[in-house]
Amino acid sequence: MNNIYDNEEFFESYSQMARSQKGLDGAGEWQTLKDLLPDFKGKRVLDLGCGYGWHCLYAADHGAASVVGVDLSEKMLEVARKKNTFSNITYLQASIDEVTFEAESFDIVISSLAIHYIADFGKLAKNIAQWLVPEGQLIFSVEHPIFTAEGSQDWSYDEAGKIAHFPVDNYFYEGKRTAHFLGSDVTKYHRTLTTYLDNLLTNGFQIKRIVEPMPPENMLDIPGMQDEMRRPMMLIVKAEKE
Amino acid sequence: MNNIYDNEEFFESYSQMARSQKGLDGAGEWQTLKDLLPDFKGKRVLDLGCGYGWHCLYAADHGAASVVGVDLSEKMLEVARKKNTFSNITYLQASIDEVTFEAESFDIVISSLAIHYIADFGKLAKNIAQWLVPEGQLIFSVEHPIFTAEGSQDWSYDEAGKIAHFPVDNYFYEGKRTAHFLGSDVTKYHRTLTTYLDNLLTNGFQIKRIVEPMPPENMLDIPGMQDEMRRPMMLIVKAEKE
Repeated sequence: MNNIYDNEEFFESYSQMARSQKGLDGAGEWQTLKDLLPDFKGKRVLDLGCGYGWHCLYAADHGAASVVGVDLSEKMLEVARKKNTFSNITYLQASIDEVTFEAESFDIVISSLAIHYIADFGKLAKNIAQWLVPEGQLIFSVEHPIFTAEGSQDWSYDEAGKIAHFPVDNYFYEGKRTAHFLGSDVTKYHRTLTTYLDNLLTNGFQIKRIVEPMPPENMLDIPGMQDEMRRPMMLIVKAEKE
Repeated sequence: MNNIYDNEEFFESYSQMARSQKGLDGAGEWQTLKDLLPDFKGKRVLDLGCGYGWHCLYAADHGAASVVGVDLSEKMLEVARKKNTFSNITYLQASIDEVTFEAESFDIVISSLAIHYIADFGKLAKNIAQWLVPEGQLIFSVEHPIFTAEGSQDWSYDEAGKIAHFPVDNYFYEGKRTAHFLGSDVTKYHRTLTTYLDNLLTNGFQIKRIVEPMPPENMLDIPGMQDEMRRPMMLIVKAEKE
């Protein structure tokens, strides 16, 4: 599997984004995600698609017993090992749809904006269910199915070049989409909301919360952020293993 | 509250639709909804926005102890009382956001495509939670938040007049929307997915299923039905009172 984050130019552009520069506080959805996180104290935590490791460090800072961060991109992990290191954080280079752990290895699994890169969510949900202890928590954010459906991930514009609305298309045709992001073609996988949730429910999860994060008040003056009131860009799901 | 279904012309047009003529089997989402319905045997059932009473009769036919169908439209109830009558079905003319029942009066509450006419879902969810017994079931369909967001409920067309995509706009601005349907202006209320689910969760419901019904195979040759693969038009939620 080829990883876009190991592409030099893409990586360079990504590293300039607010969410890369400022860490968690640079991400518009962080406040919403944070409110859904469980108490990390004494817990064994797995972060799938950990990137720079901001969430790993957050878990460690909040008392996690141990944290494993998995990412396919060696470039991302290099930064993580420098910037967000801590005695009980282990960074592991692996694809999140191929990595394996023993049953009941974790109390909490988190994943931030990584799962839409995975073709087979059913397989991943089944794996996570095995890795978690009973009553273990899964909290993940993904690009919203409405945001991934059409594929371009761009607005529709009127003749004057102003945003007209956001286009939805091919919603029930799931699968690969190629969007242009930070100057590169990025492959993602579109799934319906139904598919996300059914794969959790059939693998023994209870749905605890489903939240579409809104742009936070204090970021509305950032260019483009006000427009994010017009479409749901992300989905955060909190589920508990039965 | 003014009811569009008591408008002569609108009612006439509505009564010509497949879902009005053929009953449950004329509705594209019926198969999906049916699969989510619990066993009605011996249960006390409430149908909010019962319309012609097709679902009331279905519940009665499947062994419900009693069924109460509530609808604001006297015209709809007239048809219900003629077409879908049964000894233990009671039809009640009332607004579903004003009707009241005693606590724990029902085992099952159903509602088909009615709740998007209600301004305050929080109040309704709280009421339903009171009317249901512990472990009571709520199953309802609504127009999908993606379908209600922009307001026109119409596709975007290209210059040749062909469907280009479905427009989403103003997603996080909830409230009144006016769409043109069957020749009349119809007022509905847009709410995000988050708002629907949070109002259930905070009122003591567990989310059991969330399904976006796809057009059924055997209806894909009906004009326009194939296009319904391109957008999610409805949302079905199954929840259980704790």
